[in-house]
Amino acid sequence: MSEILERRARLLGPHMTTFYREPVRVARGKGVWLWDTNGRQYLDCYNNVPHVGHCHPRVVEAISKQASELNTHTRYVHDLILDYGEALVAKFAHDLESMVMVCSGSEANDVALRMAQAMNGKTGIIGTDNTYHGNTTAVSQLNSSKVPIGGYLDHIRQVPAPDNLAPVGGTRAEQAEAFAAGVENAIAELEASGHGVSALIVCPYFANEGFPTLERGFMDRAISAVRKAGGLIIADEVQPGFGRIGSHWWGHEKLGFAPDIVTLGKPMGNGHPVAAVVTRHDVLTCFQEQFKYFNTFGGNPVSAAAAMAVLNVIEEEDLVANAADVGAYALGLLTEVAKRHDVIADVRGSGLFFGAELWRDGKPATELCALMVDEMRDRGVLLHSVGRHDNTLKVRPPCVFSHANADQLADTLDAALEVVA
Amino acid sequence: MSEILERRARLLGPHMTTFYREPVRVARGKGVWLWDTNGRQYLDCYNNVPHVGHCHPRVVEAISKQASELNTHTRYVHDLILDYGEALVAKFAHDLESMVMVCSGSEANDVALRMAQAMNGKTGIIGTDNTYHGNTTAVSQLNSSKVPIGGYLDHIRQVPAPDNLAPVGGTRAEQAEAFAAGVENAIAELEASGHGVSALIVCPYFANEGFPTLERGFMDRAISAVRKAGGLIIADEVQPGFGRIGSHWWGHEKLGFAPDIVTLGKPMGNGHPVAAVVTRHDVLTCFQEQFKYFNTFGGNPVSAAAAMAVLNVIEEEDLVANAADVGAYALGLLTEVAKRHDVIADVRGSGLFFGAELWRDGKPATELCALMVDEMRDRGVLLHSVGRHDNTLKVRPPCVFSHANADQLADTLDAALEVVA
Repeated sequence: MSEILERRARLLGPHMTTFYREPVRVARGKGVWLWDTNGRQYLDCYNNVPHVGHCHPRVVEAISKQASELNTHTRYVHDLILDYGEALVAKFAHDLESMVMVCSGSEANDVALRMAQAMNGKTGIIGTDNTYHGNTTAVSQLNSSKVPIGGYLDHIRQVPAPDNLAPVGGTRAEQAEAFAAGVENAIAELEASGHGVSALIVCPYFANEGFPTLERGFMDRAISAVRKAGGLIIADEVQPGFGRIGSHWWGHEKLGFAPDIVTLGKPMGNGHPVAAVVTRHDVLTCFQEQFKYFNTFGGNPVSAAAAMAVLNVIEEEDLVANAADVGAYALGLLTEVAKRHDVIADVRGSGLFFGAELWRDGKPATELCALMVDEMRDRGVLLHSVGRHDNTLKVRPPCVFSHANADQLADTLDAALEVVA
Repeated sequence: MSEILERRARLLGPHMTTFYREPVRVARGKGVWLWDTNGRQYLDCYNNVPHVGHCHPRVVEAISKQASELNTHTRYVHDLILDYGEALVAKFAHDLESMVMVCSGSEANDVALRMAQAMNGKTGIIGTDNTYHGNTTAVSQLNSSKVPIGGYLDHIRQVPAPDNLAPVGGTRAEQAEAFAAGVENAIAELEASGHGVSALIVCPYFANEGFPTLERGFMDRAISAVRKAGGLIIADEVQPGFGRIGSHWWGHEKLGFAPDIVTLGKPMGNGHPVAAVVTRHDVLTCFQEQFKYFNTFGGNPVSAAAAMAVLNVIEEEDLVANAADVGAYALGLLTEVAKRHDVIADVRGSGLFFGAELWRDGKPATELCALMVDEMRDRGVLLHSVGRHDNTLKVRPPCVFSHANADQLADTLDAALEVVA
C-alpha cells in the first residue's frame, strides 16, 4: 500500500484525500459489495455514486451498447437526450420541464447560479454553513474562505443550517423559526449592501449539515421571504435525489416546496460522469439569452444512455419503495443499538440515507466518530462521518441495500461500539 | 425533423445550437463515418471528440470491461488512475509530472486559473480575443461580455490573436512582434491596475482564432514578458493535443515553449467525459494547499480506462504519424483546389487540423463560408467554420483519417465551390 500511496502523492499531489486510516485499494464491485485487491469483501454503506448498485448489468449493458454505436458531441441532433430528458422532467410534480445536461454536480450548480442571476439581475446568494455544492471557482466559494479571482464572498451569506441537537436544537418549530430568521437576516443584509437576493441554494436534505429530521413545511417561511425579495430557490438534489430518501423521489417534495431550479449529480449515471440542471422553460430561455452555454459532453449519447438505464432500473426494481422499506428497517435496528450504547445521542434519516449522531460527556464525539469509521472499515463495512462537528455516522448505500445488509451493518456497529466506545 | 427540433427546443431551450441549416440527426458512427437516422453516410471532417475514430473497438472494450468490474468515486485508491497518469505525464518533454483529473476541459481550465493564482497571488489574466476556454462561470468570462456574479472582466486583458491575413497580417516576424507587443501592453495595464499578471492562457494552436501558420519561437518574447512579471503560462491543449497536429504530441512543442500548466479535454476519452490538468508537482501542491479540491468523477476507473485506451491506440496505430502524413497530403490537395478557386485566400494547418480561408472582393467571405459549410453537409461531408471573421473552413477529423478520405474531402470541396462561389 505504501508504494501506491507514494505514487499517488507524487502524481495526484500530497493533499489528494483518501478515506480511512488504511485506505481501501478497490478492485471490483457488485451491488452493495466492493472487493479490494487482496480479495477482501466490504459492504458499501456509503457510496451514492453507484445508485442502483455497483456495476448494475442493465447500466453496464446500456453504456457498452451505446459506446459501440455512437458517442459524440452534443451539437448534432440525437434522440436519446430527448427521450431521457422527457422521462426525467416527468419525475417532477411541478412546472420544471426543461433541462441542461452537464458532466458533474459542480457544473450543474455553476449553471444554476447564473440562471438565477439571469432571471432577476441580482447578485446575492444565500446558502447554509457547513455545506458543499461543488468544486468550480464560482460554486466552491459557497463553502470556502479562500478568495479566487472574481471572488464574491461579500455576495454570499451563510445562514445556520438546521440541526436537531446543537448548536441550534430546540423543538422542531423552533428549528424552523431559527432557519427562517437566519434567511430573513441574510436577505436584509444583502438588500442593504445593494446586492439583493438572487438565490437561496440548499440541499433539501441538509445532507452535509448532518441530515437533521425536519418537518414538512420547514422551509416555507424562509422561501416566502426569498421569493418576496425577488430571489429564486435552488434545490441541490445531488445527495437526496432519485428516490434515495424513500418517501419521495426528491428531497424538496418531502419538505413540501417547489424549487425554481433543481440540480442533479452523482447518482444520475451510476458512476458515469453525467449531471443536470432541471428548471422551468422561462428560466432556461432567460439563461440562454444572457449567458451563452454549450457543454460538449453533457448529454452525449452514452451519458444519456447511462442515465436512462438508471431511471429504468429504479422503476423496474422498485428501488424507491426498497429505500423506504429497508431504510425504515435499518433505522429500527439502529434504534435498538442506540439503547445499548449511550454514545448514540440520536438516530435519524429517511430511506437509505440515515445515521447516528455520537455524543460523549455532553459534547459532540468527533474523535470517537472518526475511530468508529475506521473500526467499521476494518470490520468490512464502509461508511463515513458528516455534520458540523463531524460526529454523525453517515449511511448512504446503493439503493439495492437489503434487510440482510442492514442486519450486518447494525451488528457490526454494535460490536464496533463495544470496542471503540 | 421538425418534430424532433420542437421537442429539443422545449426540453433543451430555444437557444441550444445545432450545426447546419438542416441539422444532422445522428444514429451511428464508425471510424471517420457517421450515419443519420435515414441511413445516410457522412464523412466526419470536423469532430475531434472521437479522436481515434468513432466507436473505436479498443476504447469501447475498455469502457465496457471496466464498467462491468468497478466504477466508483475517486476517494478510494485505484491503480488505473495512477497507471494512466504516469503514462500521460511521460508524454511531456519537460517537468510536468503531476495532474488533476476532471470531467471536462471547462473544469480543467477552471482549475488551471486557480493554480496560477495560488502560485503567484496575482489576479490578472491575459488571453486572446476570439477565443474559447470553456463554460464555467469563471472561465466563460475569457470570451464573454456578460458579467456573472463575481465577474472579473476588469482582471482580463484580451490581446489580439495572431493571424496570417487580417487584421494583423504582415510577415511572420511582424505577426510575432504584434502579439508580443499586445501581451506587453496587457502586462503594463494589469500592473498599473494593481492586479498583476497571474497567467497567460492560450491555445498554442490558436484554434478558434483561425489556426494561423506560426513559426517556432513565436511565443518567446511574450512568454518572457509574462514570466518576468511573475505570471504563469497555461497551454489549453484541448484542440491541438494528443498528436493531432502531426509534428508533435502537443501544440506547445510545435511552437517551442514549455508551459507551467497544460489543460486537456475533448479527445482524451474519445467521447467519454474525462479531462485533465497537467502541471509541475510544486504547482499542484500549492493549489491543493490554498484551494481544497476534490472531483467525484474525475479519473474514476472507467474514465481512466477510456483515457488509457485512447493513449494506447494512438501509439499502436501510429496515429501521430498518420496525422502528419495524411495532413500533409490533404493540405497538398487543398492547395491544388485553391488554384482553381480565387475565393480560397489561404490554405494552412498542421497534421489533421487544417483548412482554407475564404475571401471575396478583398474582404473575408463570411457568408460564403457559411454557405459552403451547409453545401458540404448536403454533399455528405461534415466540417465547420472558424476564425475572427468566421471565414475559414475548419477540418479537424478523427485521427484515423486516410488518403482516400482526404481525396473525398478535396473533391467535394472543389465541386461545392463550383456551385456556391
